Amino acid sequence: MSQKKIAIVGASGYSGEELVRLLLHHPHADLTAVTSRQYAGQTVAQIFPRFANHPRARALRFTEPNVELIARHAQIVFLALPHGVAAEFAAPLLELGCQVIDLSADFRVKDPAVYKEFYAHDHPAPELLPQAVYGLPEWYAAEIKKASLIASPGCYPTSVLLPALPLVRSGLVKPTGIIADSLSGVSGAGRKAELDYLFVECNESVRPYGIPKHRHLSEIEQELSFAAKESVTIQFSPHLIPVNRGILTTLYLAPEKHFGDAAAMAELNENITRCYQSAYENAPFVRLLEGKALPDTKNVVGTNLIEIAWRLDARTGRLIVMSAEDNLVKGASGQAVQSMNLMSGYPETAGLI
Amino acid sequence: MSQKKIAIVGASGYSGEELVRLLLHHPHADLTAVTSRQYAGQTVAQIFPRFANHPRARALRFTEPNVELIARHAQIVFLALPHGVAAEFAAPLLELGCQVIDLSADFRVKDPAVYKEFYAHDHPAPELLPQAVYGLPEWYAAEIKKASLIASPGCYPTSVLLPALPLVRSGLVKPTGIIADSLSGVSGAGRKAELDYLFVECNESVRPYGIPKHRHLSEIEQELSFAAKESVTIQFSPHLIPVNRGILTTLYLAPEKHFGDAAAMAELNENITRCYQSAYENAPFVRLLEGKALPDTKNVVGTNLIEIAWRLDARTGRLIVMSAEDNLVKGASGQAVQSMNLMSGYPETAGLI
Amino acid sequence: MSQKKIAIVGASGYSGEELVRLLLHHPHADLTAVTSRQYAGQTVAQIFPRFANHPRARALRFTEPNVELIARHAQIVFLALPHGVAAEFAAPLLELGCQVIDLSADFRVKDPAVYKEFYAHDHPAPELLPQAVYGLPEWYAAEIKKASLIASPGCYPTSVLLPALPLVRSGLVKPTGIIADSLSGVSGAGRKAELDYLFVECNESVRPYGIPKHRHLSEIEQELSFAAKESVTIQFSPHLIPVNRGILTTLYLAPEKHFGDAAAMAELNENITRCYQSAYENAPFVRLLEGKALPDTKNVVGTNLIEIAWRLDARTGRLIVMSAEDNLVKGASGQAVQSMNLMSGYPETAGLI
Amino acid sequence: MSQKKIAIVGASGYSGEELVRLLLHHPHADLTAVTSRQYAGQTVAQIFPRFANHPRARALRFTEPNVELIARHAQIVFLALPHGVAAEFAAPLLELGCQVIDLSADFRVKDPAVYKEFYAHDHPAPELLPQAVYGLPEWYAAEIKKASLIASPGCYPTSVLLPALPLVRSGLVKPTGIIADSLSGVSGAGRKAELDYLFVECNESVRPYGIPKHRHLSEIEQELSFAAKESVTIQFSPHLIPVNRGILTTLYLAPEKHFGDAAAMAELNENITRCYQSAYENAPFVRLLEGKALPDTKNVVGTNLIEIAWRLDARTGRLIVMSAEDNLVKGASGQAVQSMNLMSGYPETAGLI
Repeated sequence: MSQKKIAIVGASGYSGEELVRLLLHHPHADLTAVTSRQYAGQTVAQIFPRFANHPRARALRFTEPNVELIARHAQIVFLALPHGVAAEFAAPLLELGCQVIDLSADFRVKDPAVYKEFYAHDHPAPELLPQAVYGLPEWYAAEIKKASLIASPGCYPTSVLLPALPLVRSGLVKPTGIIADSLSGVSGAGRKAELDYLFVECNESVRPYGIPKHRHLSEIEQELSFAAKESVTIQFSPHLIPVNRGILTTLYLAPEKHFGDAAAMAELNENITRCYQSAYENAPFVRLLEGKALPDTKNVVGTNLIEIAWRLDARTGRLIVMSAEDNLVKGASGQAVQSMNLMSGYPETAGLI
Repeated sequence: MSQKKIAIVGASGYSGEELVRLLLHHPHADLTAVTSRQYAGQTVAQIFPRFANHPRARALRFTEPNVELIARHAQIVFLALPHGVAAEFAAPLLELGCQVIDLSADFRVKDPAVYKEFYAHDHPAPELLPQAVYGLPEWYAAEIKKASLIASPGCYPTSVLLPALPLVRSGLVKPTGIIADSLSGVSGAGRKAELDYLFVECNESVRPYGIPKHRHLSEIEQELSFAAKESVTIQFSPHLIPVNRGILTTLYLAPEKHFGDAAAMAELNENITRCYQSAYENAPFVRLLEGKALPDTKNVVGTNLIEIAWRLDARTGRLIVMSAEDNLVKGASGQAVQSMNLMSGYPETAGLI
Repeated sequence: MSQKKIAIVGASGYSGEELVRLLLHHPHADLTAVTSRQYAGQTVAQIFPRFANHPRARALRFTEPNVELIARHAQIVFLALPHGVAAEFAAPLLELGCQVIDLSADFRVKDPAVYKEFYAHDHPAPELLPQAVYGLPEWYAAEIKKASLIASPGCYPTSVLLPALPLVRSGLVKPTGIIADSLSGVSGAGRKAELDYLFVECNESVRPYGIPKHRHLSEIEQELSFAAKESVTIQFSPHLIPVNRGILTTLYLAPEKHFGDAAAMAELNENITRCYQSAYENAPFVRLLEGKALPDTKNVVGTNLIEIAWRLDARTGRLIVMSAEDNLVKGASGQAVQSMNLMSGYPETAGLI
Repeated sequence: MSQKKIAIVGASGYSGEELVRLLLHHPHADLTAVTSRQYAGQTVAQIFPRFANHPRARALRFTEPNVELIARHAQIVFLALPHGVAAEFAAPLLELGCQVIDLSADFRVKDPAVYKEFYAHDHPAPELLPQAVYGLPEWYAAEIKKASLIASPGCYPTSVLLPALPLVRSGLVKPTGIIADSLSGVSGAGRKAELDYLFVECNESVRPYGIPKHRHLSEIEQELSFAAKESVTIQFSPHLIPVNRGILTTLYLAPEKHFGDAAAMAELNENITRCYQSAYENAPFVRLLEGKALPDTKNVVGTNLIEIAWRLDARTGRLIVMSAEDNLVKGASGQAVQSMNLMSGYPETAGLI
């Protein structure tokens, strides 16, 4: 299988670094360009010593981001840039014939008005929205395979959508009243020199933030609405916890059917199991836990996996679903590479196991 | 103000150690006896080097737990023992004239049947239940002042009840459908040599456990039912996070009144503010946050404080309330000392600021 | 005992915050002014929510640093400022009659040429150096009592000097060839928004830095030279480890006398014991460990204590001495308050136990 | 290149788990047996959920350790057992024709008397000592290639020997008076349910232990003596720090030649550089840092790399050498796989990059 030439624009943050790691070791990727205003001129090995033993990391130098130059050197371009900025690169790169996988929020939300409501500025390239595909491979594989512009999902949305979508689509749970309570490691905040993310401010600290209206709600609600075929509003509460990586999400859902007795509960349990199994039987990165096992971020950190477990609570009539993922891999760069694999006809797991 | 003689039975765990710290420095406490089967014969300073500069810690030796001896040396006895065992000490100590402050679950639940349902054995001393007072000082100060047996609340229940009780009692929120999603530091699991609580198993890990039916539900639901004057069932989801101390609880509540427009929302906000202010205007350890501030465990660790903040979400119609406390202080030993202060006529904050 | 009026200039960093904590609770301190350019106008409670229950913290507002104003409101002024800047405040404050306790490096080194060598700029106020007293209370109590300008020691120097000085002064160890290998928590780097101190960069990381010539060498060597009555040069290797607080120092020393046999070793051990005991018999904050105990930062964090233990190694002929302290308390703010107590005739332990 | 059948005896600890990880993904290894008394009957996927997506991990079950059965299923056997126990397995496995790679200390020390001095029991199989090869591939590649019994080095010894051996062998530094000050993550203590290694006891704690005579001294001194061609005694001080993985070692060495002036220092620096470069020019896992870079465990965790940097200190006349490695990879399981690669004629880096 031939290799493709790959560039990463904005490779100095945590998800950029993770992209570098994955693409340096990818059997079908030839990483030819990485850009960073801050580090231009330095090698990847100098900035990320953990890759220093890789010959390409020692040879490849960060450059200033220049669209023409990138397009000349790469067939596929990953954008690991802030929202608003990403769209400015996507448009000319597409025009120059590149395929673009954008890790920012710029193309995730289909409706420019919703984008403006959540991101507080006009959408920078609304004309590209129709062609953008939401890069959740377990859900949109067919579209991803034909796409030239991928809007790779956010870390929180992935942790909510993969456990929630099959249930909502199947009608097993009500699409209303859903609550997602999420805990994220500090790398989710990015490599930003801000007091709030200093070691001393995060270690031995746990705190909610962005409550009640976090930006990621926009894409979560959009995708749940598509699945439910009606407009869905959910409750989403993110918290910051002192780990480097990992998101643990706990979902509170209301089954459509009451399960007052043991028989009804057993039947519902079986339906949920079947719903998940049929949704994910061919999904190499979704692990449905069995028996007494519950998700634990330490089981998935460094991998592109998401763990999912659920419990019915006869006392409250609710369904609790829990998921664990690595926010930088399945929640960002790993998922983006998974889309690249699909777009390029590579095995979905190439470079990800 | 005269001093009282104090004993701690089972002083070798984390809440026992925290009791030792608080009582060594308490202006009106004379710590005369500490028991521990494991450490009998050794001084407090030897087992807990952090107190080694305190003369009493150097002089006081752990003894085998002997009820008669304890009763001879102490007027107030704290029990920091496993449930089931605590009741065995409480009964004879009360008979011998001691006041007993029990940090276990043994006397928290009024109904022995509920106790058996949640703790999987018959209640060891049901005859004492009527006289036991639930030691939540912000709620039962009058009863605590006259009590000889205090059932000091659990760490999770404190973090749920202090923010929830005023709202439920006032009728501002529905008593049904309440969800409490809690995150606890590892000291909550006790000083137990189990693989699950090893550094390597907890660090860089986040995980739910005990879902959906944790033991602490029994006392939470009992107290909410008292406040609501109807039977309340709630959803409670504990998670283990890699900090030594601290509990962060996020509550999801449904206001009785819809608040579809800005005016209704402002009115409801004001009613909630007033409800909390009137409940806690004389509560020295409840801190109602203002403005944009949200609870953070690092602000309360080492103190007997609980931070509370809330947000109305117009999009979902829900009320989100968040609290932060130190599980070993306000969630255990500090609260027990607060009860001791009330029982003894000391200032409520003595030894706790 | 009457109270003194106290000001803190530069109270927004970690040692400033720790000074606030200690002085708010000090029985003889009346904290009347705190300055911070960044936070001017806001209350102490707003910036440091952990003190929000203290009435003074709610009332006291940060102000711009104004020498005349400070001098009008305070008898004793703590300077928690960067080196170079501290001296600019010390001079006019002393002239206006304040006593000054400087936590920076500005007055620690007696020789302005050494200061310039290590701090890379001319000494900002060499005329004040003769009157400055090195604020190590276990060593300079008599001078501190009469001082109006205290140069409070650095965190690393305290962890090295308290274990090393008695041995060097007594001649039990050679003053040459000493090695100090130190491990510090991240708060030692200050509350600075720099990438190197982000949670993700420090957590799961251990690293040396500033090797081989860290600035703190200058004061360490000065004080060891005074004790040895000859010029001493030492090796000092700091490392950054992922804890909030705490310094663990391991010293490698060469005893003057060989201890080839068990009898010689026993005698030397006894001499070392006696040397430490006589040096620190009246030192309330020095804890000499006995038996098998070795220092552990968790035993001293939050206290003004330093733990010291030592081992003779018959195989190598060396003496290993280990110390543990809280870098922000005994290594900074606690020690500064200890000096204040001595200067003011208060008990040395006032507000520190 | 054909595959070899591999067994791991004692696969339930941290280095056993790391062996499983490496061998599951090794291109030339066919993991056919894993033993664990505790987990016999359960699959690898059940015990180590992080490998649950690997088909072999789901199929392979732990068995009771049975020598005949193991020998029937494996050509190469890794022993991840406590010292003393390992030798009991090695003897019969060798007899049955297996190649044995032992991660315990049993065959590292050539002299049974030294073994007894440091491990406090008679050597369990002294007759095998002559054939055992110390599995440090950068030093003994030729011997490893022909060996049937590998004594894979300890984690601390690897971190000390790789930076020290070239210097000692070359005569650039004196073999006397060497000090190694090491900091280790908690996984170095093994997966043992002991109070000392609980999260709450390790988090926010730093402590020395095993001072002054840690067991690993025996193999360190043996190998340094071989290199120096004289008997070497060193100082070794291990410390426990709150990270999961990683060892940072700081070595204090005395160059043979004084380097009083800049020219002598430059020459010595060049000689050290050349010494390291010639020792490690073909060593794929040794990274010699350049410029201002110093080792950081976060750059090597999860890899088989060791980072090495050095600094001459003109003030003290010493050479400081620092190294960083992952204690479970280069310090244990990765290094053992590296030996397997050499023994089997595979590329040295197979399965390790």
